[in-house]
Amino acid sequence: MKLVIVGGVAGGASAAARARRLSEDAEVVVFERGPDVSFANCGLPYYVGGEIATRDKLLVVTPDRLRERFRLDVRTRSSVEAIDRARKVVRVRDLATGREYEEGYDKLILAPGAAPVRPPLPGIDLPGVFTLRTLQDVDRIKARLDAGVARAVLLGGGFISLELAENLARRGVATTVVEKNDQPLTPFDPEMTTPVVAALAANGVTLRLGDTAEAVESAADGLCVRLKSGLSLPARLVVFGVGVRPENALAVGAGLAVGPRGGVRVNEHMQTSDPDVYAVGDAVEVTDFVTGEPAQVPLAGPANRQGRIAADHALGRPAARYRGTQGTAIVRVFDTVAAITGASEKVLRRAGRAYRKVYVHPAHHAGYYPGAEGMTLKLLFDPAGGKLLGAQAVGGAGVDKRIDVLAVAIQAGLTVFDLEEAELAYAPQFGSAKDPVNMAGFVAAGLLRGDHPQVDAEAALGGYFLLDVRTPAEFAAGHIPGAVNVPVDELRGRLAELPRDRPVAAYCQVGQRGYLATRVLLQAGFRAANVGGGFATYRLHHPGRESSH
Amino acid sequence: MKLVIVGGVAGGASAAARARRLSEDAEVVVFERGPDVSFANCGLPYYVGGEIATRDKLLVVTPDRLRERFRLDVRTRSSVEAIDRARKVVRVRDLATGREYEEGYDKLILAPGAAPVRPPLPGIDLPGVFTLRTLQDVDRIKARLDAGVARAVLLGGGFISLELAENLARRGVATTVVEKNDQPLTPFDPEMTTPVVAALAANGVTLRLGDTAEAVESAADGLCVRLKSGLSLPARLVVFGVGVRPENALAVGAGLAVGPRGGVRVNEHMQTSDPDVYAVGDAVEVTDFVTGEPAQVPLAGPANRQGRIAADHALGRPAARYRGTQGTAIVRVFDTVAAITGASEKVLRRAGRAYRKVYVHPAHHAGYYPGAEGMTLKLLFDPAGGKLLGAQAVGGAGVDKRIDVLAVAIQAGLTVFDLEEAELAYAPQFGSAKDPVNMAGFVAAGLLRGDHPQVDAEAALGGYFLLDVRTPAEFAAGHIPGAVNVPVDELRGRLAELPRDRPVAAYCQVGQRGYLATRVLLQAGFRAANVGGGFATYRLHHPGRESSH
Ligand SMILES: Cc1cc2nc3c(=O)[nH]c(=O)nc-3n(C[C@H](O)[C@H](O)[C@H](O)COP(=O)(O)OP(=O)(O)OC[C@H]3O[C@@H](n4cnc5c(N)ncnc54)[C@H](O)[C@@H]3O)c2cc1C
Ligand SMILES: Cc1cc2nc3c(=O)[nH]c(=O)nc-3n(C[C@H](O)[C@H](O)[C@H](O)COP(=O)(O)OP(=O)(O)OC[C@H]3O[C@@H](n4cnc5c(N)ncnc54)[C@H](O)[C@@H]3O)c2cc1C
Ligand SMILES: CC(C)(COP(=O)(O)OP(=O)(O)OC[C@H]1O[C@@H](n2cnc3c(N)ncnc32)[C@H](O)[C@@H]1OP(=O)(O)O)[C@@H](O)C(=O)NCCC(=O)NCCS
Ligand SMILES: CC(C)(COP(=O)(O)OP(=O)(O)OC[C@H]1O[C@@H](n2cnc3c(N)ncnc32)[C@H](O)[C@@H]1OP(=O)(O)O)[C@@H](O)C(=O)NCCC(=O)NCCS
Repeated sequence: MKLVIVGGVAGGASAAARARRLSEDAEVVVFERGPDVSFANCGLPYYVGGEIATRDKLLVVTPDRLRERFRLDVRTRSSVEAIDRARKVVRVRDLATGREYEEGYDKLILAPGAAPVRPPLPGIDLPGVFTLRTLQDVDRIKARLDAGVARAVLLGGGFISLELAENLARRGVATTVVEKNDQPLTPFDPEMTTPVVAALAANGVTLRLGDTAEAVESAADGLCVRLKSGLSLPARLVVFGVGVRPENALAVGAGLAVGPRGGVRVNEHMQTSDPDVYAVGDAVEVTDFVTGEPAQVPLAGPANRQGRIAADHALGRPAARYRGTQGTAIVRVFDTVAAITGASEKVLRRAGRAYRKVYVHPAHHAGYYPGAEGMTLKLLFDPAGGKLLGAQAVGGAGVDKRIDVLAVAIQAGLTVFDLEEAELAYAPQFGSAKDPVNMAGFVAAGLLRGDHPQVDAEAALGGYFLLDVRTPAEFAAGHIPGAVNVPVDELRGRLAELPRDRPVAAYCQVGQRGYLATRVLLQAGFRAANVGGGFATYRLHHPGRESSH
Repeated sequence: MKLVIVGGVAGGASAAARARRLSEDAEVVVFERGPDVSFANCGLPYYVGGEIATRDKLLVVTPDRLRERFRLDVRTRSSVEAIDRARKVVRVRDLATGREYEEGYDKLILAPGAAPVRPPLPGIDLPGVFTLRTLQDVDRIKARLDAGVARAVLLGGGFISLELAENLARRGVATTVVEKNDQPLTPFDPEMTTPVVAALAANGVTLRLGDTAEAVESAADGLCVRLKSGLSLPARLVVFGVGVRPENALAVGAGLAVGPRGGVRVNEHMQTSDPDVYAVGDAVEVTDFVTGEPAQVPLAGPANRQGRIAADHALGRPAARYRGTQGTAIVRVFDTVAAITGASEKVLRRAGRAYRKVYVHPAHHAGYYPGAEGMTLKLLFDPAGGKLLGAQAVGGAGVDKRIDVLAVAIQAGLTVFDLEEAELAYAPQFGSAKDPVNMAGFVAAGLLRGDHPQVDAEAALGGYFLLDVRTPAEFAAGHIPGAVNVPVDELRGRLAELPRDRPVAAYCQVGQRGYLATRVLLQAGFRAANVGGGFATYRLHHPGRESSH
């Protein structure tokens, strides 16, 4: 049995190591175009910024280690140029010598990853214009930085760009991020990125939304990025982080099926349209676990696990199957953490799927214990039955935990009613007796049980009598335009002030007092609804749009 | 509808608030014996130590707030002395005036909590001897501390005692913890408490295991605790934290069923043997979610949720049901964090339940990113099918997250095979592409698939040829007595040195190289097994028992 693997990093190296553990006899050849295998792509931005101090930290495993420990035939600087499926051989080019040769396989695993998109713009090849994928990219970026860079422009507001922006800011580089959409981090729903936008601003990173590069030009002291808006941004460093496209040239050349966005098509065993050829990682099209639609989700966890599954199946374990990708992802931008799992509201809307949503804004641990940090947790769920469809959180500490808990809940097919009863670890440093996950479950379950009609904070509120049930001081510090203030503790005594001829939308800061107010009003015969997630959610949707007096 | 609630803290206040949200019309009376409602019991140790700086932080909600916001008839310093179930009245004693009166109810919820056990020892009532449950207890302890305490003795090595020990150490008090078992934190399996024991020692807290108090005596400059071992410990502060017993006097007096350990018997709706009387929180006997056995689990999360469920059911929501308790709990002892969910090995053994177990020792986030902290994660699962039965973790950062993830996995009935495919949030600050939860799943799944026979690290290893596959340097720094060192990377070339007439037990530091070695050996025709969790697990079981040269 001879297994050939193309690509020696996340998916490829994982497949190779797993193959050896399964079989001492298998011949396993790993071809890697670059000089390194098994490096930590995900650490690259932090090496740029210096938090990861030494380059060798990024080399998780060396080719020699793979050879010694796993008896793998690892060939670096070796590019696989073509696959001849009929003869079951790959054509390899040794980049050091230029020599080309063929290598036969019984099973082939493609783990070539994805390449950063380089839009065909004037000036994209100028010195000082980079993308960030490999150690060599980082070496070049660092060399440029070390030579002195006062200003940088990052194109694209995705995960990698924002991580890089943080690290450039850390080095004192004035950085502008340009994103063509009206939000950064497009896998998230827009309102959930509001705190990220604020974090960038608070840390001196300029974010230009709804704009895009038209050209990069040489300027007296470096470069200049000309934007569609007409603006010209001077910079000595320009990095394009506008997404990746699957490295599908080998697959396409060999006539393997690829999806409309270029991902190699695979079945649940990670087999391509040729059962002897597998593909894994950033190169493939996966099935979205929640929507069942094809998706491309370039993330390290799925790549690693897919590599393991492909090896299993290739080495004779027919039960090995990949269950689809949830898109669980996380990013830290300065002190702000944003994480997501499952479907976003955007995705659900696009898929025409019915959903409801709630927001809670709890502290990450007991409020009475010092150091509690706030977070916003958004839950998306099926209106019929309450099955979880997705979750997003943004805040600081504890965001990762809640998204991981919800990721497993989604994997398990749990409902919001199950979240009400989740029994999570509580001591004051770690959570609350009613954890944020429970809270979100309570609110969602109450919604589905009909205890509190909800009006979404971004909805048109014009038809409602808008009732702010916070304290006068909170009201004065900012409220939704047109709202009338009756503090919740006075509400029962002041019902006569409220209209019975039109619906009342009650709101407070986070939704909790608004919910109580809604209960009071409903039981007093009013038509009432709670503004979901309260003023805090309203502000995420409408940063800046509020009245104060 | 008139709802009467006995007890105004976790379970009682939650039931009361929920009742009001459900019904504006219900008359809700809350009787609380103490002066406070809704206080943060769980914060008390940190107020002793000063991390929580002000006392009012501990008052989560005041009686006035409950009155104003929820229109609750809150009566503090009011002790319910008896229940007359036939007439549906409770007898109440106003502790301020001594007046006694009756209050009728339609539904009654008992949330009286539990009382610290005060063993009937000579000297237990001496000044300077305390238990810790209420704000008044803390006031007394703090007053004593402020008067100058150089030495303290804490009886019992449970969660509260260890939290208190940390806080006394913080104040510079020389503290000894005396625990009658041979481990602290008895809900945990003993080996998982080894790092906690080390943390206490490293921070100057003396822990005496297998010993217990026989008497407290007055001494020249304070007190002296006489132990069973004969030792006498001088102290100016003595705190008994040897467990709690359900406050069941009311229930017993009213002829309600109680379990053998005193917990009030309830059904899944939290109804006692009288359907108009509910009981919740520390006072009740619950069903262990994993074993199905009756259990007493005095924790705040369950108490809060049970209160909510009892209110629901009492106010006409017949579907409200409690699903049983997993015993998810966490404690921080200085920088060491220990957490548990589901059944321990002890509990499974006692229940005669078949189980397997694995240990992993991963870093809490990517090793290449600075600040990674180690942890030990133990998984218990069903040998047939792999269903999760329990998990324990000990380490620092990230322990809480993994236990919460596993708590939900247990709630959902997931298997170790599901954990292999958990898709958790990964960026270098938060986890690894293969998260500790995945790793534990991999190892457990491999065990069940038969890929690697495992010998438990605490087992008698005498029958095995003990093979240490770590580096010579690791071997020299300490190994299992009798082991022979062949580094894994040399193993394939040195198979001739190994016996074929007896089984080989391979081990490394954490189990990973030992697993590879086991695979190599098995495929080379040896009888081989991996020492589960490696030397690290061995050392948890046998702190100190190792050879070095
Ligand atoms: C800066 C950065 C930060 C990231 N941060 C995160 C994060 O925080 N969390 C997360 O989950 N993911 C993150 N990712 C994404 C993650 O690194 C990828 O999803 C993962 O590496 C994909 O694995 P893969 O095996 O498919 O591809 P890769 O890891 O890219 O490996 C593919 C390898 O194949 C080689 N190759 C390609 N074609 C050929 C050929 N024809 N012949 C020989 N070799 C070939 C390439 O040289 C490459 O080394 C980040 C990526 C980057 C670049
Ligand atoms: C120091 C300490 C630290 C803790 N730390 C944690 C932790 O980190 N995590 C965790 O999950 N749990 C922790 N707990 C446990 C948690 O506080 C309890 O599980 C929880 O409070 C139980 O809620 P309950 O409503 O059943 O009882 P309680 O909260 O104790 O409330 C019962 C109330 O009923 C009153 N009462 C009793 N009898 C009568 C009567 N006859 N008439 C009128 N009133 C009456 C009592 O005065 C008491 O105030 C801790 C407890 C303590 C003491
Ligand atoms: C380094 C690399 C080659 C490792 O591959 P690997 O050996 O499959 O993976 P790990 O080192 O994570 O080890 C996992 C294996 O060890 C086993 N293991 C881990 N801890 C164990 C323990 N305590 N006892 C027994 N086995 C253990 C697991 O069961 C698993 O084996 P299995 O797949 O046969 O079940 C590969 O993951 C890689 O190249 N990573 C870096 C690149 C990368 O991922 N980049 C993107 C993210 S930055
Ligand atoms: C303070 C106390 C009275 C609160 O009771 P409570 O009002 O039921 O609980 P919370 O304040 O946690 O709020 C939960 C309610 O707010 C709702 N809520 C929370 N956030 C919301 C939001 N953003 N939008 C709408 N509703 C929200 C929840 O749905 C839930 O209502 P429900 O039960 O009707 O579904 C009670 O928990 C208590 O006494 N706690 C302190 C004592 C204690 O627990 N000690 C032990 C631990 S230290």
